[in-house]
Amino acid sequence: MTKAPWIDYRPEIKVLDCTVRDGGLINNHLFEDGLVKAVYDTCIAAGVDYIELGYKGDKKIFAPDKHGAWKYCAEDDIRRIVGENEADIKISVMADAEKTDYKRDIEPREKSVIDIIRVATYIHQIPTAVDMIKDAHDKGYEVSANLMALSTVQDRELDEALHILAESPADVLVIVDSYGTLYSEQVRDYAKRFLKAAKGTGKEVGIHAHNNQQLAYANTIEAIIVGVNRLDATINGIGRGAGNCPMELLLNFLRNPKFNLRAVIQCIQDHFIDLGKEMEWGALIPYIITAHFNQHPRSAIEMLDSDKRNNYVEFYDRWNEA
Amino acid sequence: MTKAPWIDYRPEIKVLDCTVRDGGLINNHLFEDGLVKAVYDTCIAAGVDYIELGYKGDKKIFAPDKHGAWKYCAEDDIRRIVGENEADIKISVMADAEKTDYKRDIEPREKSVIDIIRVATYIHQIPTAVDMIKDAHDKGYEVSANLMALSTVQDRELDEALHILAESPADVLVIVDSYGTLYSEQVRDYAKRFLKAAKGTGKEVGIHAHNNQQLAYANTIEAIIVGVNRLDATINGIGRGAGNCPMELLLNFLRNPKFNLRAVIQCIQDHFIDLGKEMEWGALIPYIITAHFNQHPRSAIEMLDSDKRNNYVEFYDRWNEA
Repeated sequence: MTKAPWIDYRPEIKVLDCTVRDGGLINNHLFEDGLVKAVYDTCIAAGVDYIELGYKGDKKIFAPDKHGAWKYCAEDDIRRIVGENEADIKISVMADAEKTDYKRDIEPREKSVIDIIRVATYIHQIPTAVDMIKDAHDKGYEVSANLMALSTVQDRELDEALHILAESPADVLVIVDSYGTLYSEQVRDYAKRFLKAAKGTGKEVGIHAHNNQQLAYANTIEAIIVGVNRLDATINGIGRGAGNCPMELLLNFLRNPKFNLRAVIQCIQDHFIDLGKEMEWGALIPYIITAHFNQHPRSAIEMLDSDKRNNYVEFYDRWNEA
Repeated sequence: MTKAPWIDYRPEIKVLDCTVRDGGLINNHLFEDGLVKAVYDTCIAAGVDYIELGYKGDKKIFAPDKHGAWKYCAEDDIRRIVGENEADIKISVMADAEKTDYKRDIEPREKSVIDIIRVATYIHQIPTAVDMIKDAHDKGYEVSANLMALSTVQDRELDEALHILAESPADVLVIVDSYGTLYSEQVRDYAKRFLKAAKGTGKEVGIHAHNNQQLAYANTIEAIIVGVNRLDATINGIGRGAGNCPMELLLNFLRNPKFNLRAVIQCIQDHFIDLGKEMEWGALIPYIITAHFNQHPRSAIEMLDSDKRNNYVEFYDRWNEA
């Protein structure tokens, strides 16, 4: 008889909901408070460990007349939704390297309702990211280092980056498949490398997957099996382009009794059926194509937003040019 | 450095397109000839090895006034699309145990344009299926034994069934995840058990996945990694309920130069954008729920076809009752 590890659960696993943060990349973070509050309440009812509401974006870079409050995550805006956050759930914001005036805009932990700062970095920004990680750590936050667009990083670069991040005060190192291009074998390899780098440091490893190839959930499962304990997911799989690992699938797999799938299904019924009529995400053909060619989804987003949105073959041929 | 097996390909792998067969379960096989011809031409252009057009359904069980030609796959109807099938592609039809008058309706191979008979069986129909397998084999066909609803089969039953099927003249044994409920670890276990049963017999092992949990493609990849060489897929993932493994994703993973992804993308652009407006398939929430509870999708299909199609929580609660 084969063993059936999926019947039990691993208590160390923690889930981060990034519905409002990654979903905000579709609509310039212009969500109404009612939706943000519904997602917050749902995450509490569902037993989710963290909720990420948006970015600490620099207003010099992102014009406030074009972006909603969740591009900046000011304390007052967060408190408008969560009050003093008396619930067990922790509040996360993302800080992009080179797009955050972190010394100014990230307040000391004791003045903030935020619990964790997730520093998002491309491979060429590692020194900046490390400075941001130190800054957030020194201010008293839990800190995550999210290494974006891994599918474009060379192996020897990754080894060096992981070596540097392992020596930083980051509490979590996150595998980010920004382009949704990774296969399960690649995810297992990355998970092993990240876990090896984290070994003995007390750091946890996480995964943030995109769903271009309908693999976001599958790849998250593969990372779990290898030992990854921090999982990103979104309600109804919302997120830029093809979207992310759907929370309603992930909670099926995680058998920890603290999780409650029904609350997520209720939220989808009450809010996401309508939201799907206003905003578009999912594994549409152009997103499969950008993933296939290991490209950022922005060209597919533009194409789907144009009058050529059904010209799949022309789009495919463009990427296949020499 | 890690090895990267996904860069190369395994020449033994063969792909079966069941777009018209499994898609026909959505619309009682009432496809127009133009679409069936387009799928046939696409499969040839894409280098797909087999195309499955429908069932050899018994007209005493399936009333001809309610079903299209592909419920029966009469020779004349197939020839109307494929002529004498001068292409390299092989023609498949499915024969359901207890729903096929196989002695009468399956003609000798030399009189038919069909190449392979795929016998679909539930665990309790194995003796009938073996008789059908022998009949088709004796008539000169390649024969596949497709063991449906594996997620409801007990381990000791499966061992016995595989023992019997391994002694039958079937050329292929297919893992069928009818309810779309299997996780990758389960698929790897099933693949190993099927391959062990097939060892030394010359039989190949195949997989037919459903996409309820967005795992049809991922599970097909896992089966490939373990050694499964016969893969079912459909254009745009069409198929009953949540649909099947999407051909446009699978051909990305299979690097055999004989395959041509562009032809599939062209077919989706030309035919499936419109088809998606007439027919519904995909990993909708009710299909996630039936998979979660290891149930046939029929209750979700009925619910989505009713005025309660958005009542996800009520549907979830129904299955969660004691």
